[in-house]
Amino acid sequence: MKEKLIKSPLAPSKFPKMFSVDGVNIATVATGMKYQGRDDLLIIDMAEGTTVAGALTKSSTSSAPVDWCRKNLKAGEARALIVNAGNANAFTGSFGIKVVNECVTAVADKLACRPSRVFVASTGVIGELLPYELITTFVEPALKNAQPASPKMWKSAASAILTTDTFAKGSTALAKIGDVEVSISGIAKGSGMIAPDMATMLAFIFTDAKIPPDILDNIVQPIVDKTFNSITVDSDTSTSDTLLVFATGEVNGQHEILRSNDDALANFKTQLEYVMLDLAMQVVRDGEGASKLISVEIIGAKSDNSARSLAFSIANSPLVKTAISGEDANWGRIVMALGKSGESIEKDKLIISVGGVEIASGGSVVEGYNEDPVAEHMKGDEISIKVDIGIGNGKFKVWTCDLSHGYIDINADYRS
Amino acid sequence: MKEKLIKSPLAPSKFPKMFSVDGVNIATVATGMKYQGRDDLLIIDMAEGTTVAGALTKSSTSSAPVDWCRKNLKAGEARALIVNAGNANAFTGSFGIKVVNECVTAVADKLACRPSRVFVASTGVIGELLPYELITTFVEPALKNAQPASPKMWKSAASAILTTDTFAKGSTALAKIGDVEVSISGIAKGSGMIAPDMATMLAFIFTDAKIPPDILDNIVQPIVDKTFNSITVDSDTSTSDTLLVFATGEVNGQHEILRSNDDALANFKTQLEYVMLDLAMQVVRDGEGASKLISVEIIGAKSDNSARSLAFSIANSPLVKTAISGEDANWGRIVMALGKSGESIEKDKLIISVGGVEIASGGSVVEGYNEDPVAEHMKGDEISIKVDIGIGNGKFKVWTCDLSHGYIDINADYRS
Repeated sequence: MKEKLIKSPLAPSKFPKMFSVDGVNIATVATGMKYQGRDDLLIIDMAEGTTVAGALTKSSTSSAPVDWCRKNLKAGEARALIVNAGNANAFTGSFGIKVVNECVTAVADKLACRPSRVFVASTGVIGELLPYELITTFVEPALKNAQPASPKMWKSAASAILTTDTFAKGSTALAKIGDVEVSISGIAKGSGMIAPDMATMLAFIFTDAKIPPDILDNIVQPIVDKTFNSITVDSDTSTSDTLLVFATGEVNGQHEILRSNDDALANFKTQLEYVMLDLAMQVVRDGEGASKLISVEIIGAKSDNSARSLAFSIANSPLVKTAISGEDANWGRIVMALGKSGESIEKDKLIISVGGVEIASGGSVVEGYNEDPVAEHMKGDEISIKVDIGIGNGKFKVWTCDLSHGYIDINADYRS
Repeated sequence: MKEKLIKSPLAPSKFPKMFSVDGVNIATVATGMKYQGRDDLLIIDMAEGTTVAGALTKSSTSSAPVDWCRKNLKAGEARALIVNAGNANAFTGSFGIKVVNECVTAVADKLACRPSRVFVASTGVIGELLPYELITTFVEPALKNAQPASPKMWKSAASAILTTDTFAKGSTALAKIGDVEVSISGIAKGSGMIAPDMATMLAFIFTDAKIPPDILDNIVQPIVDKTFNSITVDSDTSTSDTLLVFATGEVNGQHEILRSNDDALANFKTQLEYVMLDLAMQVVRDGEGASKLISVEIIGAKSDNSARSLAFSIANSPLVKTAISGEDANWGRIVMALGKSGESIEKDKLIISVGGVEIASGGSVVEGYNEDPVAEHMKGDEISIKVDIGIGNGKFKVWTCDLSHGYIDINADYRS
């Protein structure tokens, strides 16, 4: 394990100053399980009455913590979250289930709540047995020392869940529900094994709004599709991907929510999407070895689903991603990626643009194509690819990063 | 364009001494179109009565040469083949169609045959207009100098079609049809943008057997699935993938073939599969940046198709491939790749082996797992992964290579 990864050149300049969320108390601990000299365990104690909604990996080799969350998300009630970094507790059989039980029970005992209200996530190496005593030992002192969600504590929380990430990821916003101002603060981790569904390994978002679980779920799911399910680093979907949105209901002020399509929720939805997209983009910006942030926008496809498939065919193509890493305006590889997708296209109707410059249409390069502005665009940090399929109204936009030597460096010996 | 690529460490020790094929005459030329100091144009003049069968890319942005071959394969009759390296003539619109017409007409005029009997393939950069005069100018002198298919000429032919390949690829065999001995000799090129369907960019196989086109097609298609459609380098399917099998019928001796399931064809099928698999494996061995040849065998799947999908999910996973590049026995990534495939699996029934050593079963690592022999296996040139899905009789085996710094080196500036 390389302890000192170089910070991604695409990282935000600094960790944001995050808003507190009433009803959220944070503790972090260094268990020494895998990493030295850093916290690797996060425990969050939330107010009674907290509701939760979320999305979990669709992998059929999902981890024991994911299976636990899936089972308990249905009730939509939460009291605590416990997350460890360095060991994914995935493909660990009945022992893995025991690990989850030991951890959630340790927390539930201290908080005097049902174990089913304790949500758990683990991130790290797959297949290794997790020495759970290193977690359970710390539960009592951690909960005793838990502190309200201050900017400093948010940063500690975001840092404690990292693995190969090169920077801590946080995002924050205020929203109005009626006349009541609520806060939304979220943290995320993930930089490799990032592909839908889900597109990040772990993301946890907290609000002090009071939202019934079914309505929270109705709000969250469509936003997941436009944010975390619209990013890819390497097309490899994790066994552990977990997104959870918690609403403590502890906001100072009364607001009532009766339906998920309530007009009063419009601003909250906008701000939640902002936070979730911001976190998702930070995951891409920390893509293993990333030196370029790439947006791929498809319009004019047969359907939105077709546009999505075409966009991901480009965004996951090793040849497209290595060309961009080399700052090479090799648009023929975009043609290749469109062609291999299996989606309906007519090659003479495609219009391919890079950096806003139309390069190809009518089945070949545009007349008098001047590569200079495109070559200049390729030297920047942010690359935009847009393709008009020309046969319908389907559209979708995804984000990815380039495939560079850094990815190989990190992944050829991540575990050892 | 890097002119001096380092020869793949997985390359065969030398180019084979290939059998002549009666009715095949070979010419190669240096056009100077892209490469300096090497031949980049191959023209093969075949006997009248030659039949042909083949398989072409399923990409919907297939190149003009592929479209030409698709149209003319139906008749199953061939008289010549013309192949250029350095420009794929793909996504070149109506000009690309004109290029094909000019080239095949130039050959057909000299051989006094119909243009539809001239097959054409182009390999190289996508999207650049091909200056066809650089080809047509050389057609007459090349055909004048064409020579029978000697070992030396086979090697020239195999060398003239290379792009980022680091070694020329050839394979050869003798077969018996009844009492008559026929020869089978083939060449191939391809090292990146290799994924089914088809799995190589270009492969041309020649035999002096006399086989009607419909029977030849019935023989070839199932072998394509077991060979070229069972390999992947980078999951990127080319716009230009072309496999053609030509039968000149010029063998010295009479054999009759009435049906494709004729017993007399058994040995011919075996030898043709040997040549095609050998060529396909050479393509993987020349995978861009390859340092390890990886076989992925799935058994016990719901169906052969499911096994195929599971095998390719592992073989195309960047995380599996980088781990192998780093000689890291990180079997958890195999679990991840199985999980993300979308295929039917039950995690407790999986049995995962690497290098013949059973690592995981019953949903977790095997008791007392000793990583030493697996770590030793990872240091070798050839890595074998086997997974028993444990729920059915479906099986499939695919081959790939690791994902290394070499792949990034080659592809970050292939075009420039």
